[in-house]
Amino acid sequence: MIDVDNALNIINESTKKLSLEKKDILSCLNKVLAEDIYSKDNLPPFDKSAMDGYAIKSEDTTNCDSENVVEFEIKGLIKAGDYCEDELKPGQTFKIMTGAPLPKGADAVIEIEKVEVEGNILKISQVVNKNNNVIKLGEEIKADELALNKGSNIRPVEIGLLASLGYSSVNIYKSPTVALIITGDELIDIDSKLQRGKIRNSNEYSLKALIKNSGAKALSLGVVADDKDNLKGKVKYALKNADIVVSSGGASVGDYDFVDNVLKEIGADMKFNSVAIKPGKPVTFATYKEKLFFSLPGNPLSLITTFEEFVKPAIEKMMGKQIGNTEEFPVILAENFKAKRGRKKYVYVEIKEDNGKYYAYKVGSQCSNHLMTMSGANGIIIIPKECGEVKAGGVLNGKFIFK
Amino acid sequence: MIDVDNALNIINESTKKLSLEKKDILSCLNKVLAEDIYSKDNLPPFDKSAMDGYAIKSEDTTNCDSENVVEFEIKGLIKAGDYCEDELKPGQTFKIMTGAPLPKGADAVIEIEKVEVEGNILKISQVVNKNNNVIKLGEEIKADELALNKGSNIRPVEIGLLASLGYSSVNIYKSPTVALIITGDELIDIDSKLQRGKIRNSNEYSLKALIKNSGAKALSLGVVADDKDNLKGKVKYALKNADIVVSSGGASVGDYDFVDNVLKEIGADMKFNSVAIKPGKPVTFATYKEKLFFSLPGNPLSLITTFEEFVKPAIEKMMGKQIGNTEEFPVILAENFKAKRGRKKYVYVEIKEDNGKYYAYKVGSQCSNHLMTMSGANGIIIIPKECGEVKAGGVLNGKFIFK
Repeated sequence: MIDVDNALNIINESTKKLSLEKKDILSCLNKVLAEDIYSKDNLPPFDKSAMDGYAIKSEDTTNCDSENVVEFEIKGLIKAGDYCEDELKPGQTFKIMTGAPLPKGADAVIEIEKVEVEGNILKISQVVNKNNNVIKLGEEIKADELALNKGSNIRPVEIGLLASLGYSSVNIYKSPTVALIITGDELIDIDSKLQRGKIRNSNEYSLKALIKNSGAKALSLGVVADDKDNLKGKVKYALKNADIVVSSGGASVGDYDFVDNVLKEIGADMKFNSVAIKPGKPVTFATYKEKLFFSLPGNPLSLITTFEEFVKPAIEKMMGKQIGNTEEFPVILAENFKAKRGRKKYVYVEIKEDNGKYYAYKVGSQCSNHLMTMSGANGIIIIPKECGEVKAGGVLNGKFIFK
Repeated sequence: MIDVDNALNIINESTKKLSLEKKDILSCLNKVLAEDIYSKDNLPPFDKSAMDGYAIKSEDTTNCDSENVVEFEIKGLIKAGDYCEDELKPGQTFKIMTGAPLPKGADAVIEIEKVEVEGNILKISQVVNKNNNVIKLGEEIKADELALNKGSNIRPVEIGLLASLGYSSVNIYKSPTVALIITGDELIDIDSKLQRGKIRNSNEYSLKALIKNSGAKALSLGVVADDKDNLKGKVKYALKNADIVVSSGGASVGDYDFVDNVLKEIGADMKFNSVAIKPGKPVTFATYKEKLFFSLPGNPLSLITTFEEFVKPAIEKMMGKQIGNTEEFPVILAENFKAKRGRKKYVYVEIKEDNGKYYAYKVGSQCSNHLMTMSGANGIIIIPKECGEVKAGGVLNGKFIFK
């Protein structure tokens, strides 16, 4: 049995970013950029007006105040999308709309609310500073400058930025395909009526949802009978057609540990088969060439916990994301929590915020079969393996779940 | 010009949950449940073993210790999925696997690690309590009990829970369709080379990404020329085919405010046309029957900010989610931040965590044109409209963006 941190290190060392693929930018949302992006142009590509107003030479207003009103001849209107060929001469102005390019010779814009207009005469009674309401050419970014680093997360703002830079497609890291092998002779189909000794196959659905939320693609091989030859065929198929294989439950039957045996027979590199985590513990991790194999426990709560703790970081690393525990924060225990020493314990709780502090409340039995409990929870608290019971008022690290 | 809170209240009052639709459970991920879900069965449907071990009558071990070893006759093996017809008699045991149903007459399971076996004789040298390692029938939920409330968010755990309860499909609230009308004669296609006075259409892409992340469906009408009749046709089409219409920019050209005029002409109920928010301000909100219309500013940063602040809560309410500001938390200013009084200001920053506290750092110009700035940010700080400059060390509310 190894520690959670050791297990995560081994998984991290065994996991590589996948290769690149070029995708249209909207398909890149929530993926990781796999190339540096340089600006092809100056943005904005011209001096432009930040307001609806009048473009002028600022020097024309040098001595201007309410006693010394300056008059300008309005030469025309420049709308966004227009381009004015005329050069502004002293005493002249153009009405200009937000986003429109300044005419040559103009260096400032005065807002429409601050002037008086009579016919084609504009009256200004205040000093207007150079570059007032002007967004300068190249102010956001200059041609050939680095706009986005390889490794950036592509959020809606990056989608907009890429569009404004003229990139309709970019290279991202591929998303892994995760194959699912569900074992357990007690499992019946979701639509079936319960029979003696049977329960419904819920793990396949939880896993598909977890995989979807992680940004990976699921390839489900469905419920596989507890038969070694059959399982071996499925494992080989899964390793061939997916980047990660996740098996759930039922693998350890009687004196046979089919999954581990199959992995050894095909020459997989067995990394560990037990982790000091609760719920969880019987987690096998192996590699086969560049592929990863996780054998997770069949108890629904253990399955979701170990997927989030061990498989999700591997998926994220393959997609080019950073692995980290940055989502943890201090949580104050509102009640006593019982625990046994020896394993790192993830206790599903309701985390409530009060005046900038977070408090953890019980939500029910932590029995690893009970999805009802997790369904009432919005977070976990993490009890270190050295700790037994932890008392109300104590502070532990916690995090929100399914974020 | 109205306050942000007023604007949000008006939007909230004008927004109703959409109607229901029945979907297979995996399609319900991240949606909101629109019905109460009751359990059809007791879960688990039988007393089952939580461990690999031996099923016994606990009373057979009453006086058991290392001096008084008790022997049992091993009658057979019960695997998960099996159902044992035999009734256990005193002095008998069945080997039993995790998840398997207890045989009649058994009331406890002792772990495989705690016993000795010789041939078909099991030796126990400790007291085993009643219900030890037994998950009782109905322990998770009983038949006809409420399992999930209408209004619950459907996360991976709820997908698994619904599957275990035998629900392959459930009623959820529909996700809104959001129509997009992009205006601005300065806009050219993303793949085009920049021409004089033109910039690329980035807002359509930002908006599609924001809509996708919010769980709604986008219906883009593309770039619409600044022509009133044309615009009117597009607005009517959008209101007919979508639940929410978002227009962006270019609507206020010269002395014409086409979008507002069109909305008035078709009889829309104009709610407000200016909000005390920066970046933002020229936000028009109107309703037309049950449909919502948001006219947002064309500056990329203002557009994303006002979408997240005003449109996203409406989308979420239509989908049955709660509208709330629960994601805000106290942030310590690491630097001085300049601001003008009069509008609630959203400043894009980098929020860094240090020892359980959050600190805000500048990321660059807050010019409402600059997506580069937002791309460097992971959060915002919110400066109340009454505040001017805020000093380093001060505490403001902040939140992470794109969460």
